[in-house]
Amino acid sequence: MSEFRTAAVDSLIRVSTELAARGWLRATSGNLSIRDVKTDTVYITKSGADKQRLSPDDVLTLSARGDILEGTGRPSFETAIHQAVYRSVGAGAVFHVHTVYNNLVSRHAVDGGIAFHDHEMLKALGHWDEGARITLPVVPNYADIDRLAEAVSKAVRPAVPAVLLARHGIYAFGETADAALRHLEAFEFLFEWLTLDRISAAGTVAIISQTQQS
Amino acid sequence: MSEFRTAAVDSLIRVSTELAARGWLRATSGNLSIRDVKTDTVYITKSGADKQRLSPDDVLTLSARGDILEGTGRPSFETAIHQAVYRSVGAGAVFHVHTVYNNLVSRHAVDGGIAFHDHEMLKALGHWDEGARITLPVVPNYADIDRLAEAVSKAVRPAVPAVLLARHGIYAFGETADAALRHLEAFEFLFEWLTLDRISAAGTVAIISQTQQS
Amino acid sequence: MSEFRTAAVDSLIRVSTELAARGWLRATSGNLSIRDVKTDTVYITKSGADKQRLSPDDVLTLSARGDILEGTGRPSFETAIHQAVYRSVGAGAVFHVHTVYNNLVSRHAVDGGIAFHDHEMLKALGHWDEGARITLPVVPNYADIDRLAEAVSKAVRPAVPAVLLARHGIYAFGETADAALRHLEAFEFLFEWLTLDRISAAGTVAIISQTQQS
Amino acid sequence: MSEFRTAAVDSLIRVSTELAARGWLRATSGNLSIRDVKTDTVYITKSGADKQRLSPDDVLTLSARGDILEGTGRPSFETAIHQAVYRSVGAGAVFHVHTVYNNLVSRHAVDGGIAFHDHEMLKALGHWDEGARITLPVVPNYADIDRLAEAVSKAVRPAVPAVLLARHGIYAFGETADAALRHLEAFEFLFEWLTLDRISAAGTVAIISQTQQS
Repeated sequence: MSEFRTAAVDSLIRVSTELAARGWLRATSGNLSIRDVKTDTVYITKSGADKQRLSPDDVLTLSARGDILEGTGRPSFETAIHQAVYRSVGAGAVFHVHTVYNNLVSRHAVDGGIAFHDHEMLKALGHWDEGARITLPVVPNYADIDRLAEAVSKAVRPAVPAVLLARHGIYAFGETADAALRHLEAFEFLFEWLTLDRISAAGTVAIISQTQQS
Repeated sequence: MSEFRTAAVDSLIRVSTELAARGWLRATSGNLSIRDVKTDTVYITKSGADKQRLSPDDVLTLSARGDILEGTGRPSFETAIHQAVYRSVGAGAVFHVHTVYNNLVSRHAVDGGIAFHDHEMLKALGHWDEGARITLPVVPNYADIDRLAEAVSKAVRPAVPAVLLARHGIYAFGETADAALRHLEAFEFLFEWLTLDRISAAGTVAIISQTQQS
Repeated sequence: MSEFRTAAVDSLIRVSTELAARGWLRATSGNLSIRDVKTDTVYITKSGADKQRLSPDDVLTLSARGDILEGTGRPSFETAIHQAVYRSVGAGAVFHVHTVYNNLVSRHAVDGGIAFHDHEMLKALGHWDEGARITLPVVPNYADIDRLAEAVSKAVRPAVPAVLLARHGIYAFGETADAALRHLEAFEFLFEWLTLDRISAAGTVAIISQTQQS
Repeated sequence: MSEFRTAAVDSLIRVSTELAARGWLRATSGNLSIRDVKTDTVYITKSGADKQRLSPDDVLTLSARGDILEGTGRPSFETAIHQAVYRSVGAGAVFHVHTVYNNLVSRHAVDGGIAFHDHEMLKALGHWDEGARITLPVVPNYADIDRLAEAVSKAVRPAVPAVLLARHGIYAFGETADAALRHLEAFEFLFEWLTLDRISAAGTVAIISQTQQS
């Protein structure tokens, strides 16, 4: 077993245990991968693996073409999406999770994206300038996996380290596992904030309206 | 003690500890069972058992007729519902929990059910086709346990692996304990999402309305 | 040290650790007590104790009159409320916690109470009959502790095992520590459900209204 | 290593582990410091430190002027804000966290502040009198760190142990680490309560409005 695989498996187990504890990998959903950029080898969780108790056997080694180099079992159905991200932006890790809040915000996409601006959390996504404004790409959740992978390829951009599938989940990426995790956490924070801010603001408007009518 | 009982007790302790940690078994609510399909024997948690610290003594072995074969104490009051599910769909495990969100969605049932469609989480419930649409049966929470069991028997269908009792809780089932847990987690995810999506959407509508009136 | 004190301290440490982990004892708020019904001795957490790491030294033994029999330090400022409950309903344990949801529901009290009916969780509060309906007493949060204790004394009734102080917190009680904990969990479940059900229902009404106006 | 540093590092590790477990330090956000009031020495977490597994190496010792006395690496970018608080109110600990709720409430600031009154949790902030009313200062989140530090210096007052940066996070302080943590928890409790109380109240108003129109 290569040294890179050993380190990648350790990282995947650590991240998987952590995300499972938060409830971000419920119902065996989600999948996690790390890529050796030098050899274009991908280490990815198996389909249906128990994410709370991930073991080295739950991680497959895939070639750039997607052939299984190490391990037995079926790679995740969504491996094609991971590979589409790696081909498009050359990241070192891709983490995919379903959360209630990433599902909720996808309803509010406009022209294929959700805009975020004037928020401190953009710094964790690599945007430090005063008027920073980013648009997270949102892709329809096509049932056909090849069509979905192509849509992700077209939508994804290096400056915004994630892509959202509507009513499905997020694919967050980064140069390293730590960066991908930081990006994932920053987006999920923004999703919770955006959802509750909309609800809270709507309530405010309703109150003002009542006052005006009386 | 049979080998099956040993394995079933281990599974029940694992699932119970996990669900208790999430707060899905508060106030000693909820009950969990596993069935040996070959012998029609059911292993079920005792009434009032401490779900955070379930011990082998908290699990009773019941015959197909409901007689206690192993263990002492009172089987759960809701054993009749577990048996109604087993008789109707022939599952291998039934998990019953009360959560705030499964109580909330029961308000929105129409014609005895709640429809879910266009959502990735349907795959975790066994529905993979593009236009998948399922209706979760919702049964009134009759105080009479026999009437309730009969209503559950009539409502439950193998293709939708759960039934909801209004303002009470969910009974999720599956061929194995792992499948029942996956179904439970998928439905609870959908309940949280549906509740917050309704609130979030209502807010949006209210904002639009205010703009039109001004 | 009496055998009862040893058991009471063990129970208080177990309950305190559990409730602290849920975030129900934040900012050193809340206090917990167990009473020996035979001798009318009360075992109560000290003011300002670290509830996540409660130690035997954090529990004072008080006589029926409130004198310190064992331990050093100041009893909780709210000891008078615990004693008011014990005098009025003769319970064996009183648990007091501040939660966001028990603060939220106190806004919706009508005529000094909040009504709950048609909900399975009433069974965990001892109400099993079909049309069960209970009213949880809600008391204004008087700054004067004697006035507050008197108001609690007048409001509390054995059939409804808790009393709510508006914008402050709940005092849940029971014959044993287990019963008090079950009652506390059942009420907190109902508070979360009631708050979100109101919000969710309001959203529904708003949608209908928009449709009618168009 | 001084005795004070040893104790400060222990406290920072304990607080950091606890706050990370609650999700208050996501995406490597937040930073924590303790100050030796006698020598005006500050012990502060490094930029980008893993808050779930803080080690002594992640804590830098800074002089009153901000020079690194012990440790290697970059102090947090937001060290200037910690120092602005220490200079202005002479506290012994400053804890800075990003939470969804502290971001949400900043929208509702009026004239540079958010008022809280008639709430038991004010006691945990040191306000025990009957009609207690405090205003938490809210500062715009200037990108320029010196401008931000100056705005914090002007806004902060000893009687209200925190300052909020809009759409960014809270800086809570206290004479000791325990006091700063208690203040942080009390404010976060109030933020959750205020947000949900507004939403819940808005829903109520909306229902009344519908009734009046029909």
